[in-house]
Amino acid sequence: MYQGRKAVESDDSKAECCNPVLSPDNRLLRTLRGEVAKPGEPPPIWFMRQAGRYLPEYRALREKHDFLTLARTPELACEVTLQPVRRLGVDAAILFADILLPLLPMGAPFRFAAGEGPVFDAPLASRADVERLRIIDGPEMSYVGETLRLVARELSSVTALIGFAGAPFTLASYLVEGGHSRDFRKVKQLMWSEPDTFRLLMEKLTETTIRYLALQISSGAQVIQLFDSWAGILSAEDYARHVLPHSRRIFEALPQTPTLHFGVDTASLLPLMATAGATALGVDWRLSLITARELVPKGMPLQGNLDPLLLLAPAEVALSEARRVLAEGSSGPHIFNTGHGLVPETPPDTVKRVVDLVHEG
Amino acid sequence: MYQGRKAVESDDSKAECCNPVLSPDNRLLRTLRGEVAKPGEPPPIWFMRQAGRYLPEYRALREKHDFLTLARTPELACEVTLQPVRRLGVDAAILFADILLPLLPMGAPFRFAAGEGPVFDAPLASRADVERLRIIDGPEMSYVGETLRLVARELSSVTALIGFAGAPFTLASYLVEGGHSRDFRKVKQLMWSEPDTFRLLMEKLTETTIRYLALQISSGAQVIQLFDSWAGILSAEDYARHVLPHSRRIFEALPQTPTLHFGVDTASLLPLMATAGATALGVDWRLSLITARELVPKGMPLQGNLDPLLLLAPAEVALSEARRVLAEGSSGPHIFNTGHGLVPETPPDTVKRVVDLVHEG
Repeated sequence: MYQGRKAVESDDSKAECCNPVLSPDNRLLRTLRGEVAKPGEPPPIWFMRQAGRYLPEYRALREKHDFLTLARTPELACEVTLQPVRRLGVDAAILFADILLPLLPMGAPFRFAAGEGPVFDAPLASRADVERLRIIDGPEMSYVGETLRLVARELSSVTALIGFAGAPFTLASYLVEGGHSRDFRKVKQLMWSEPDTFRLLMEKLTETTIRYLALQISSGAQVIQLFDSWAGILSAEDYARHVLPHSRRIFEALPQTPTLHFGVDTASLLPLMATAGATALGVDWRLSLITARELVPKGMPLQGNLDPLLLLAPAEVALSEARRVLAEGSSGPHIFNTGHGLVPETPPDTVKRVVDLVHEG
Repeated sequence: MYQGRKAVESDDSKAECCNPVLSPDNRLLRTLRGEVAKPGEPPPIWFMRQAGRYLPEYRALREKHDFLTLARTPELACEVTLQPVRRLGVDAAILFADILLPLLPMGAPFRFAAGEGPVFDAPLASRADVERLRIIDGPEMSYVGETLRLVARELSSVTALIGFAGAPFTLASYLVEGGHSRDFRKVKQLMWSEPDTFRLLMEKLTETTIRYLALQISSGAQVIQLFDSWAGILSAEDYARHVLPHSRRIFEALPQTPTLHFGVDTASLLPLMATAGATALGVDWRLSLITARELVPKGMPLQGNLDPLLLLAPAEVALSEARRVLAEGSSGPHIFNTGHGLVPETPPDTVKRVVDLVHEG
């Protein structure tokens, strides 16, 4: 069994569950304590972006409310969080929110442009812009705490509740690039040309993220996933020097909570990411779970890694590849997931068939 | 020394040089035969997209001619090919062309849209579209042969002449996606949903590429680089099943010529790519050359891997990182290059300083 930091602290495992309704013994939490599924026993399964536009019941709600209203109204966000749990029978609910939400009270407004994703009309462009950002505390994000409390009340004991946040580098990349980026050149230039300003930005994002995640944990989140979605654009050298210390501070600040650490394109960063302090690492579809196991400490739980676009392929192709992922993951603790978020065009029926395959073997 | 396929055939090395003016003993060719630079001896250096918009002398020509005219007029393409050799003193000239050029006579017209890159107004959408594509032979690309003959005449014996082509998967992705793509979902769906049609497309592209590269070699190209720029979007499973056999056929068809095989994001594919048959592998900046050496056969030459965006950073940062790349590459045969093509905003002076650093140690 994995002898990492969190496993050593497993005597505290009772403290991991903040809501008495939720059980510390569901499949996800057991896997995060390093248990390997026995032959015939299914691994836990959930999907990144399992709540969202591919579900007709989500689209029905979105017709009445814009995205930010859905995410910031606890009753609505709770309903959206629960939709995939009801339809799919996945082993975890993940808070319906967006990694960018804490940036609003920090003083960095953004909007969602059709087909473009998030757009910051005033991307950070100077030291003064970074200095103006506020470190936020709990109250500004209290709607997220309320959502988690509502969800926890509705979940059965077999379903885990996952909270999440964006990692400082990924948040910084949106703030500096002003949205999605092809080559992330602005945030790289800030990192290389003004390392002190970049560090100040990372520190503010780190501090905010720690407080935001503490709020989520005290509101019922049993597991936290830190999304460093775009860290894979960096060289190992830059990641180690400019990014890893900040992500490490976040995990150090959450010693009681099982944590997942995920990014795309991390094949060359994985040995470094394994030192950041998370309980488990999520990997994308590029890296087979067999190879990933060779890059992380023995017994460390891994999450992934079906290509989410396979769910758009004929169902028999998706199921055959899901069987491969199951087999590749089975030599250690494994949480079945996609290697990135589900896309809006995903047929829910194929997703359900993958869940059933994983649960029924 | 590397005991791979090309090294075993090194008795044929004289045959590698098709133009008597060019020497088989320049730094690049020696490294491709597996020689490691001795302490104090510089490795060869060239840059992907070293001819192009970042050079004022290129922009001056572009003001008078559009891109396709430059690429298809041998005298102009020769001049553009030589510009970076004159200014920078790099160890290789690379043919000025575009990987998409052979697609024009195949029957797949495209245009370059400002800020968007190449656009195919009629992307491949059916089996019939793929069946209509023509396999091309030498004559349609004879302007490239003429360019290479002109360049070979101008190069001094210390400068190698590199020809290149796009690998079948990367060409297929442009043909099916219709241009650049964020997630390559159309080409993946074709691969998964209609594997026979996808294979037919790959076979046509493979056959065309073999003939196109044979033309380049007979016209004076001493080294060939195969750009599988976007292969890194695939899982190792998909790469091995749907892509590798085609790339392998290309290298098998060029047994006398030293070859470079490059893609971005290939950290998880590198062990497979090392079996495709190229003499050397190029890697992007994500993967340190030290790690890359552990993933390929002992002594296999590696090319790379400075982040090209570092050349936009303050020169002292770029030079410091170039020193790191030099050190990381020095434990085996190493060709210094960037990890992807130079971008138009690159300051030529910084590029020159990196060349001088590498040459002067």
